[in-house]
Amino acid sequence: MAISIDTLVPAFRWLRTYQRSELKDDLVAGVTVAIMLVPQGMAYAMLAGLPPVIGLYASTVPLVVYALFGSSRHLAVGPVAMVSLLVFVSCSRLAEPGSDHYIAIAVLLSLMVGAIQFLLGSLRLGFLENFISHAVISGFTSAAAIVISLSQLKHILGIHVASGHSAFSLLSETVQRLGDTNPVSVGIGLSSIGLLLLLKRKYPLFPAPLLIVIGGTLLVYLWGLRDAGVQTVGKVPQGFPSLSLPEIRLSAVRHLVPTALTILFVGYIESIAVAELVAARKKYTIDPDQELKGLGLANIVGSFFSCYPVTGGFSRTAVNYQAGARTALASFVTAVIVLLTLLFLTPLFSFLPNAVLAAIIIVAVLGLIDVEDARYLFRLKRANGWALVLTFLTTLAIGVEQGILIGVAFSLLLFIWRSSRPHVAELGFLGEEGVFHDITRFPEEKTYPQVLILRIDASLYFANMKFLEDTIRRSIEDRPDLRWVVLDFSGVNDMDAVAVRTLEEMMDTYGERGITFTYAAMKGPVRDLVARAGWTEKYEKNLIHASVQHVLRGIGVLKENG
Amino acid sequence: MAISIDTLVPAFRWLRTYQRSELKDDLVAGVTVAIMLVPQGMAYAMLAGLPPVIGLYASTVPLVVYALFGSSRHLAVGPVAMVSLLVFVSCSRLAEPGSDHYIAIAVLLSLMVGAIQFLLGSLRLGFLENFISHAVISGFTSAAAIVISLSQLKHILGIHVASGHSAFSLLSETVQRLGDTNPVSVGIGLSSIGLLLLLKRKYPLFPAPLLIVIGGTLLVYLWGLRDAGVQTVGKVPQGFPSLSLPEIRLSAVRHLVPTALTILFVGYIESIAVAELVAARKKYTIDPDQELKGLGLANIVGSFFSCYPVTGGFSRTAVNYQAGARTALASFVTAVIVLLTLLFLTPLFSFLPNAVLAAIIIVAVLGLIDVEDARYLFRLKRANGWALVLTFLTTLAIGVEQGILIGVAFSLLLFIWRSSRPHVAELGFLGEEGVFHDITRFPEEKTYPQVLILRIDASLYFANMKFLEDTIRRSIEDRPDLRWVVLDFSGVNDMDAVAVRTLEEMMDTYGERGITFTYAAMKGPVRDLVARAGWTEKYEKNLIHASVQHVLRGIGVLKENG
Repeated sequence: MAISIDTLVPAFRWLRTYQRSELKDDLVAGVTVAIMLVPQGMAYAMLAGLPPVIGLYASTVPLVVYALFGSSRHLAVGPVAMVSLLVFVSCSRLAEPGSDHYIAIAVLLSLMVGAIQFLLGSLRLGFLENFISHAVISGFTSAAAIVISLSQLKHILGIHVASGHSAFSLLSETVQRLGDTNPVSVGIGLSSIGLLLLLKRKYPLFPAPLLIVIGGTLLVYLWGLRDAGVQTVGKVPQGFPSLSLPEIRLSAVRHLVPTALTILFVGYIESIAVAELVAARKKYTIDPDQELKGLGLANIVGSFFSCYPVTGGFSRTAVNYQAGARTALASFVTAVIVLLTLLFLTPLFSFLPNAVLAAIIIVAVLGLIDVEDARYLFRLKRANGWALVLTFLTTLAIGVEQGILIGVAFSLLLFIWRSSRPHVAELGFLGEEGVFHDITRFPEEKTYPQVLILRIDASLYFANMKFLEDTIRRSIEDRPDLRWVVLDFSGVNDMDAVAVRTLEEMMDTYGERGITFTYAAMKGPVRDLVARAGWTEKYEKNLIHASVQHVLRGIGVLKENG
Repeated sequence: MAISIDTLVPAFRWLRTYQRSELKDDLVAGVTVAIMLVPQGMAYAMLAGLPPVIGLYASTVPLVVYALFGSSRHLAVGPVAMVSLLVFVSCSRLAEPGSDHYIAIAVLLSLMVGAIQFLLGSLRLGFLENFISHAVISGFTSAAAIVISLSQLKHILGIHVASGHSAFSLLSETVQRLGDTNPVSVGIGLSSIGLLLLLKRKYPLFPAPLLIVIGGTLLVYLWGLRDAGVQTVGKVPQGFPSLSLPEIRLSAVRHLVPTALTILFVGYIESIAVAELVAARKKYTIDPDQELKGLGLANIVGSFFSCYPVTGGFSRTAVNYQAGARTALASFVTAVIVLLTLLFLTPLFSFLPNAVLAAIIIVAVLGLIDVEDARYLFRLKRANGWALVLTFLTTLAIGVEQGILIGVAFSLLLFIWRSSRPHVAELGFLGEEGVFHDITRFPEEKTYPQVLILRIDASLYFANMKFLEDTIRRSIEDRPDLRWVVLDFSGVNDMDAVAVRTLEEMMDTYGERGITFTYAAMKGPVRDLVARAGWTEKYEKNLIHASVQHVLRGIGVLKENG
């Protein structure tokens, strides 16, 4: 099979036809995203328990790699809040946050996430994300936003808090240390939050984070606030990270596998959701498997340049799109500007207060809490609402890694559970319309004492056959005149061997009592199955009819033209 | 709520009307079962790594308790092969088989199994067994039969083998010790097997196990074969076990929980399957929750009399029924005869060779291997066949506890997997019959260039909406004249919030391109859902029609009487 260069490197599709007119738009968008990314990259690295410079590293190489290999032209890759939180939770179990060993583990995690992403993409397993329901993602995101905000409280308060993992341990540890609160730090933090919220509402496109970064740094520098105990980012190494092999420790790899998978799914879902949103507007398509490969390569190559895991971020992608980006060249521009920052501006960051970065994080994630969505789900479908609440609560109370897993398991088990207790409707006949309806909804419809028409609203398989058997038995009781049971199979999309055997047993048992089963509107795949089971030989020819009406005509209850 | 004594103790239902004429039948059946049970009880206890007398204990009190509280009148409760194997596998991890500590753990396991059964029954959770598919049970049973047979080879060969847990470790350990084979033991074992197989085929109702027990014992006693190295049951304590509290060790309890659950499900499934089979023949009904309570009480009370876990056995129940048992009084009779054996006959067992008991086990379980079933499943439904094979292989290769769990998980995930890639059929119209069919099956049916009719054969939820979206998009491509998409929802038994939102997005997107969606044969519960989502206000009134035909008439493609 010949594979074209366009398939391997999707960027060639737009590079080949790149026009000078596009350049201006890409430049503007790239610069706009970079202005957002520099403070965010440092802040999210801090959230991940890493030195802020690692966040800047992760805002260079991975962006370029994704731009070449990803299938979205607008996705802004880099550090994001959820992934940073997950990195913190898993790595802080294995090493002291901020230490060299800790950084090595975070870089190893990037390599692992990337390798698994690339593998899944190559195996075309991108569809796996479909099994994570919207309710689970929504519940997880809201809870993670709360955990992230709580984890940043210490920077606002200027206190030292051991690394708690759940919302409750973070809260209780913070409360215990409230006595050590630094009022100057609180002042900087709260005014930053206030300013960010204000500017966000009034001037959504204004680069507020950049403003408070500059303002906060000047404040600390000019007034000598470091002496007042205000914690700052401190010395940030200048220049570009050297190429180095990630340290691979097998014991760490084993510990990191569950987190790597969680990061992968959480990061991938955020990324593909926003990528598809923008692609739909711009009328191009996103290839889920190519996305996995692109993000995977970004993380793999990044791990050779001391980067921690990245993914496509929601807010920056939106800004990139709104700022007019035409192609992924905008990401090249962003990367170059971050690189220039690394080369020339890092000395300025030594006076940047942690409270400012914490404020940026808190304002960014609090916008992710979505109460309206929970309300919508409860109104529409109670079970979906409960999946959201369960994921939200377990993420808060047990942990961010367990929360999403429990949510996914719950939502899938819920589907199985519902399928095990199918809806079965007794139908009546509405003569003039020629249709059959549930008699509990249309009590005026006609029924016949010698015929019971049941519409079965489920695929039949081992987990619901007993339920169906009981339902049919109960419907048949107290009908002395009953001679026919018509099963409307229009809703039976599939059957398994247990279902076939149970139906055979029922036909035999009730056959002895003079009650004959017939089937209406049986679908092709199910028809094939019962043919393989030998029904055409075992039972009389009139077993299966095209519709309930055909059955009733066949047994003489309806006239030929009825 | 007043609860009658008949509900608490179902035995009162038949005790109250018990007639003398029934007594003779119950006596004959009870004695017949006892003749089978005495050798089987000892053999299965040996399989469980317990002294044979524990198997006799477990054949007394639990039978009486079940007879009072169970809902089957014919179920023969007592030690069974599968449960005994599971007891061996789990307890031999915690103690040396045969030791006092080992016995204490097995008794504790009985208390735990009983307590959980009783709890599940009281909570009306008997339906949980529905989630274990027939294919999984069949694969597990065949593999467990092989593991059991391999574990008994050492008794036939007269060698000592450390307790292996998987088929492979058992086989390799046995092969390593082949040099120690005792030829006399092999002779007794093989001739016992031969005789059992022969008698089973020629005279199925003849108590062959009793015959070889007596024959084997006499042989060893008269010829002094113990001096030739033939292992025998040895000294069996005389009399009835004293009432004693099971030793509850928390560490053991924690280790035993997974096994207790496996034993519970395996035992319960075997029990309820045979109970329902007999009940259907005798036209009375089995209450799954009462069954759990009855078996639970049997195990709880048994654990106070040094019993190990019991359940309703397949073969002995069949014999009990065939021998003419009328009521559960037959089980009382069986228990009394086993009790008499314990009081007077145990000295005779000291010369009973282990090889004879092993032969009884092997012949009993080899009959459980069902190759025909696997073949049937593969022919009927390949996926079910694979569930059987997977359970069979994991049970053999990994272990009896993991096998059934992996099988259950696989069969449920398979259901989810299938549901995530639903069948969607394009329909054509067969005018004279007034029905619509899949055009790939009925290519002669009529289609219209401006209308696409799709029948969706699945409940719609988060895991299959992307698949559906792609399918619809592909169907719509290359149809320039398309103006209507009619979705036949007769197979959509349920929807979730993600499905609602995705459909809304599709209606909006395609609506802009001049393509209108309509729905036919939407079911009541789904109709309620989209009403809650505000479809009746958001979209035009003609969105939902009773049938595809109604839609086509509505949009003028079909004439009013078409």
